Amino acid sequence: MHRVLLVQGANLSYLGKREPEIYGVTSAEELNKMLLQHADIIGIQLEIFYTNLEGEAIERIYKAKEEGVNGLVMNPSGFTYAGYALRDCILAVSLPYVEIHISNIHKRKITSVLADIAVGVITGFGIDGYF
Amino acid sequence: MHRVLLVQGANLSYLGKREPEIYGVTSAEELNKMLLQHADIIGIQLEIFYTNLEGEAIERIYKAKEEGVNGLVMNPSGFTYAGYALRDCILAVSLPYVEIHISNIHKRKITSVLADIAVGVITGFGIDGYF
Amino acid sequence: MHRVLLVQGANLSYLGKREPEIYGVTSAEELNKMLLQHADIIGIQLEIFYTNLEGEAIERIYKAKEEGVNGLVMNPSGFTYAGYALRDCILAVSLPYVEIHISNIHKRKITSVLADIAVGVITGFGIDGYF
Amino acid sequence: MHRVLLVQGANLSYLGKREPEIYGVTSAEELNKMLLQHADIIGIQLEIFYTNLEGEAIERIYKAKEEGVNGLVMNPSGFTYAGYALRDCILAVSLPYVEIHISNIHKRKITSVLADIAVGVITGFGIDGYF
Amino acid sequence: MHRVLLVQGANLSYLGKREPEIYGVTSAEELNKMLLQHADIIGIQLEIFYTNLEGEAIERIYKAKEEGVNGLVMNPSGFTYAGYALRDCILAVSLPYVEIHISNIHKRKITSVLADIAVGVITGFGIDGYF
Amino acid sequence: MHRVLLVQGANLSYLGKREPEIYGVTSAEELNKMLLQHADIIGIQLEIFYTNLEGEAIERIYKAKEEGVNGLVMNPSGFTYAGYALRDCILAVSLPYVEIHISNIHKRKITSVLADIAVGVITGFGIDGYF
Amino acid sequence: MHRVLLVQGANLSYLGKREPEIYGVTSAEELNKMLLQHADIIGIQLEIFYTNLEGEAIERIYKAKEEGVNGLVMNPSGFTYAGYALRDCILAVSLPYVEIHISNIHKRKITSVLADIAVGVITGFGIDGYF
Amino acid sequence: MHRVLLVQGANLSYLGKREPEIYGVTSAEELNKMLLQHADIIGIQLEIFYTNLEGEAIERIYKAKEEGVNGLVMNPSGFTYAGYALRDCILAVSLPYVEIHISNIHKRKITSVLADIAVGVITGFGIDGYF
Amino acid sequence: MHRVLLVQGANLSYLGKREPEIYGVTSAEELNKMLLQHADIIGIQLEIFYTNLEGEAIERIYKAKEEGVNGLVMNPSGFTYAGYALRDCILAVSLPYVEIHISNIHKRKITSVLADIAVGVITGFGIDGYF
Amino acid sequence: MHRVLLVQGANLSYLGKREPEIYGVTSAEELNKMLLQHADIIGIQLEIFYTNLEGEAIERIYKAKEEGVNGLVMNPSGFTYAGYALRDCILAVSLPYVEIHISNIHKRKITSVLADIAVGVITGFGIDGYF
Amino acid sequence: MHRVLLVQGANLSYLGKREPEIYGVTSAEELNKMLLQHADIIGIQLEIFYTNLEGEAIERIYKAKEEGVNGLVMNPSGFTYAGYALRDCILAVSLPYVEIHISNIHKRKITSVLADIAVGVITGFGIDGYF
Amino acid sequence: MHRVLLVQGANLSYLGKREPEIYGVTSAEELNKMLLQHADIIGIQLEIFYTNLEGEAIERIYKAKEEGVNGLVMNPSGFTYAGYALRDCILAVSLPYVEIHISNIHKRKITSVLADIAVGVITGFGIDGYF
Repeated sequence: MHRVLLVQGANLSYLGKREPEIYGVTSAEELNKMLLQHADIIGIQLEIFYTNLEGEAIERIYKAKEEGVNGLVMNPSGFTYAGYALRDCILAVSLPYVEIHISNIHKRKITSVLADIAVGVITGFGIDGYF
Repeated sequence: MHRVLLVQGANLSYLGKREPEIYGVTSAEELNKMLLQHADIIGIQLEIFYTNLEGEAIERIYKAKEEGVNGLVMNPSGFTYAGYALRDCILAVSLPYVEIHISNIHKRKITSVLADIAVGVITGFGIDGYF
Repeated sequence: MHRVLLVQGANLSYLGKREPEIYGVTSAEELNKMLLQHADIIGIQLEIFYTNLEGEAIERIYKAKEEGVNGLVMNPSGFTYAGYALRDCILAVSLPYVEIHISNIHKRKITSVLADIAVGVITGFGIDGYF
Repeated sequence: MHRVLLVQGANLSYLGKREPEIYGVTSAEELNKMLLQHADIIGIQLEIFYTNLEGEAIERIYKAKEEGVNGLVMNPSGFTYAGYALRDCILAVSLPYVEIHISNIHKRKITSVLADIAVGVITGFGIDGYF
Repeated sequence: MHRVLLVQGANLSYLGKREPEIYGVTSAEELNKMLLQHADIIGIQLEIFYTNLEGEAIERIYKAKEEGVNGLVMNPSGFTYAGYALRDCILAVSLPYVEIHISNIHKRKITSVLADIAVGVITGFGIDGYF
Repeated sequence: MHRVLLVQGANLSYLGKREPEIYGVTSAEELNKMLLQHADIIGIQLEIFYTNLEGEAIERIYKAKEEGVNGLVMNPSGFTYAGYALRDCILAVSLPYVEIHISNIHKRKITSVLADIAVGVITGFGIDGYF
Repeated sequence: MHRVLLVQGANLSYLGKREPEIYGVTSAEELNKMLLQHADIIGIQLEIFYTNLEGEAIERIYKAKEEGVNGLVMNPSGFTYAGYALRDCILAVSLPYVEIHISNIHKRKITSVLADIAVGVITGFGIDGYF
Repeated sequence: MHRVLLVQGANLSYLGKREPEIYGVTSAEELNKMLLQHADIIGIQLEIFYTNLEGEAIERIYKAKEEGVNGLVMNPSGFTYAGYALRDCILAVSLPYVEIHISNIHKRKITSVLADIAVGVITGFGIDGYF
Repeated sequence: MHRVLLVQGANLSYLGKREPEIYGVTSAEELNKMLLQHADIIGIQLEIFYTNLEGEAIERIYKAKEEGVNGLVMNPSGFTYAGYALRDCILAVSLPYVEIHISNIHKRKITSVLADIAVGVITGFGIDGYF
Repeated sequence: MHRVLLVQGANLSYLGKREPEIYGVTSAEELNKMLLQHADIIGIQLEIFYTNLEGEAIERIYKAKEEGVNGLVMNPSGFTYAGYALRDCILAVSLPYVEIHISNIHKRKITSVLADIAVGVITGFGIDGYF
Repeated sequence: MHRVLLVQGANLSYLGKREPEIYGVTSAEELNKMLLQHADIIGIQLEIFYTNLEGEAIERIYKAKEEGVNGLVMNPSGFTYAGYALRDCILAVSLPYVEIHISNIHKRKITSVLADIAVGVITGFGIDGYF
Repeated sequence: MHRVLLVQGANLSYLGKREPEIYGVTSAEELNKMLLQHADIIGIQLEIFYTNLEGEAIERIYKAKEEGVNGLVMNPSGFTYAGYALRDCILAVSLPYVEIHISNIHKRKITSVLADIAVGVITGFGIDGYF
């Protein structure tokens, strides 16, 4: 069975409250619920981890690797700009990595330092991007 | 009913024959068939247009706008690098625009001059990105 | 008698319909009519050529040169950004070249790769710039 | 009635004597006379101000604003390269501003720090650009 | 009543011990005492938070927002250089933000990635800048 | 007794009339009055000098140095961008220099060529920054 | 038998007429004749294709690949500057590619975006470079 | 007696498991044991600290300074790219600092933001670099 | 007889008082006297002009040209950095121009925007450079 | 009779032994023999000079000029990157200069500082390029 | 038995006399003696070669390769900045290469063009780095 | 008595023959004679050294230092562009260094990597610069 870790990076626990005109009104709790249901339906064992600390994300990913998780989905959010240590970590665990952004980072002139090591990137489709 | 124009940019008619280790083995014809069936199921009227000439893509998009098409999906492919006239055209018609790349352009250090005017961008998921 | 070719670059056939808050409401047809009348009055034989393909513009300019046209006016529009082949062509035919932009390209942070080979450039005066 | 201030920037009082192969042989005095006649004909009240000091140009423009002038034409000439204070001044008075250069600044690889706040720019048409 | 959160970024708990020729001899404890007294006098409810972890600063600011704090003062210190996630957080909570630096960051050729979202910035006045 | 020279750079005599949404509605005259009163109270002998010419500012600062002024406060305003000669002058007289900007220059992406030689910089607090 | 396609890029049909001091006086027709004779002698089946449209070059190259052509020679000319789609095409067909320029592009400060995927490049030897 | 703190930065606790072709097969535990034995032999009191959080590294270094440690050795690893706060911290405690990288960072085109404040740097000699 | 104008740029009237460790202790008055004597001996009619305003320097140079001066020596000093209008002026009058700097501008990482239009430049030899 | 000097730059005496997958298996001796025979046939008097020292190449070229050599062919090899003195030398002797590289320098992202002063450049055709 | 060549680049024969506060007081002769003794003890056959000419270093390395030397240690010193020919040479002989700098080149903002082809680099440990 | 070494860098032995429109018609031999006479008159013991090899220049300067020479004059000529090893050498011997260029290097857009360590630089005055 597929086991996937979803890492929600810095500032995402504030989802639904933070700049809703950009990030939408769905709260982090509602999103989690929807994602877990969806995972259940398509037969994926999903774990969701929120953190504002890059180091905690790194530790969680190493732990996931050891527990047998075989896929990583992440919205790096606040780590998008300078998450070099996180980048090294993803290279180290060599899990297939999918990167998601709620808003279109190209429109906001943001360059992700993680995108080039991803399998693929989905950006700009709101929370639909997670599904 | 939703009407969507899919523009397949320069080099994509060669799909399945061109660098299959990057672009996969599905041919343009097979992809078209799959996409039209899928569009049928989800109730979208899809038109597909292949071209190697940026100017033809521009003309097709203006025509689509006049015919009442209300969504644009494009894999700019060879137009990704310097398709500035195409960019102006998409801004002009103001159709919601979704950009798709078969391979992860971030991994290949390619910058799309069109991505910042898209609603969203999907890159790296092979032909799955179209669905 | 002076013979002048006016080349209207990519996207300009959509004039009047495309972003009217930037480009005004006069359509390409109306503009043509006005320009031909004006040319008649001031005794210039004017030909107007619209195209979305840089290569077609190149061919038209070579043909004009051979037919004895002795002046070139162009709104490069979509070719402004990367029209290097067009630039080579204008250098080759060595016709005096006047460049026109409807909006002020300096305000929009656009750099024309053709402007340095022009006799002069008029930018930002709407369709008045053509007269 | 329209009242327009024409500011002639640094080095322009030397017109006709300075590098005539670039700037032509018309002197500043002759140009003034021609411009005032032309203004008379088209019903504009024109004032012309020459200065080599950026600060004097600034003061003249503020004064013009207070006197009810409602249009600004300027050949920034020597202020083209680094006239940032002048730029702030034009933004402050919010008069419509037209920029003129006798020679084609694009050909001479000059970037005007004022051009992006102009309504429009005319460059390369010699003293015809003023008319 | 005004409630203000003061965040003291990475390395500031070492104040008074760290490079006193640059940062002065007042310790963090002494500064806190002085600031709380001053806040008392001018009728502001001040909370002071020291942290070396950017993620903790983010969490504290979200918490402050929820508790009704209505102003943010921060000396980003070590977060000045690459605190992009912190920057997103401040944008998200939309509290008026004042940035303080003990030494003149311009003299030290440091660019703050947070300064452009501040109401204002005070830099170079030692601990006087806090008052 | 402390003697301080306040230099108000290019465009500041227009204060209160120029872009009030950025610079506020207090006029230069009102500001002067408030500042002189405040200086009186805190026992500082204040002189205020407005100029639109960088060279005049330079001369005034040298004169102040010779008259025994021992502090310089300046809002370089229009000289912020390219006031290199002014910069040399301040280095030459070696008076302690405080730089003030009414609006937050970081928000407006402006770099002051004078800020690195200041004791400190206050930016973004409106005319409060002067007090 | 070796089959080679020679693509003559934008502006080359004007050969002999365009800036002869740079490109020589041999016309396109004369060059073709000479090249076909030479090909005949050394036992190569040569096809020559002139175009001003990058997209047409792309289509011709794909067609050549399908017809069994096993070598590509090209003077990209006007496509030298921004022929990214053409570059993708040559990578796709994986034909050995030789790039020719009549004048020395290094002397003219031109960078070819195609040169790094060529087997080799010959530049500056006039039409001799083709032989 | 010399007391040295060794800080092992982000991702190093995963040593031996992470990309062994780059970082070797020795685990963090084995390395620690070897280093402590070696320290014992050459008469140095060594403390080893692993962390994935830059802020924790900062706190540990300040604590070490207070406890009388008089040398700092660090493999910044994930903090190499943007560890500016760590850099400020090392400047603040003014301990002699030696930087170690297991792989040659020059070969991997990595620039360390900490290297210029080190006494010296050893890069590329695997775990031998620590001895 | 040779007539030479020496222009002393911004800040030079303060010579001898300004940063003597860089510029020496000779005052402007003493230097003038020495230079006029020296000019007398070698049979040159020398005029010396000090100014802090770039525009005044421009006017003086035009006047000199009209009066028959046939050589220009200048220490641009404060105009070194951004004296573009002055540069245009020197090009306009086409007098042979010699540039002098008291200190070595290369050592101070200063780039003169005037040096490339000089006959020659002497920098770093103190006031000896004038002789 | 034509006399040509061939200069083989730094590292080329090692030909055939150095990275044969890039530079081929022909040794310097074999190449010399082949080139001299070929020169004999086409009636050119060829001299070949190998050196690892840029200064020696310079001296050899001056000497050749004095001896009446009237053509220079060079594979600058190790001098390609920074051979500025060699560049000055070739400009000084004003011999027609042809530059040859065994491998395609564009593919290896190498920029030759000599190429812009050559008549022409041949790169990527192995030792065939010499013939 | 291991045979190692140590190349001491430009300026190193002056060791002990040149800027002793940076490079220490040990002379080249003393260093040689110490290194040969040390090599003897650890069973390495060491040859030391000093040169100020990059071309001589290149020749010595090729010769060493032919004589069976199997390791290269070098302090490139003056060749650090632009030793591209040397770089090619080291790639050609494919000997394992260790780079040593007496002072910390990172502190001095020096980039070595050779470091990325080294096995490892030791910088900043004085002459200890050689042992 | 003052002893001065004059180093004439790469290409200068060709003086008078090389590009006389830039470098004049005086030969190296004539220049030497004139310089030695002039040195004799002003009581300086002058030695002149020509070389095309940077390493030889380095060795000559070290030797001069040891022989008691106390001043260095150099026209770096071909070493101007990348003479980093020479630069290190001059810093090492700490002789006062005067740099001379026959033509104005600013006019030719050349940057000397040695100029910032000179006492002073004289450029553009032909061979007069040596006197």
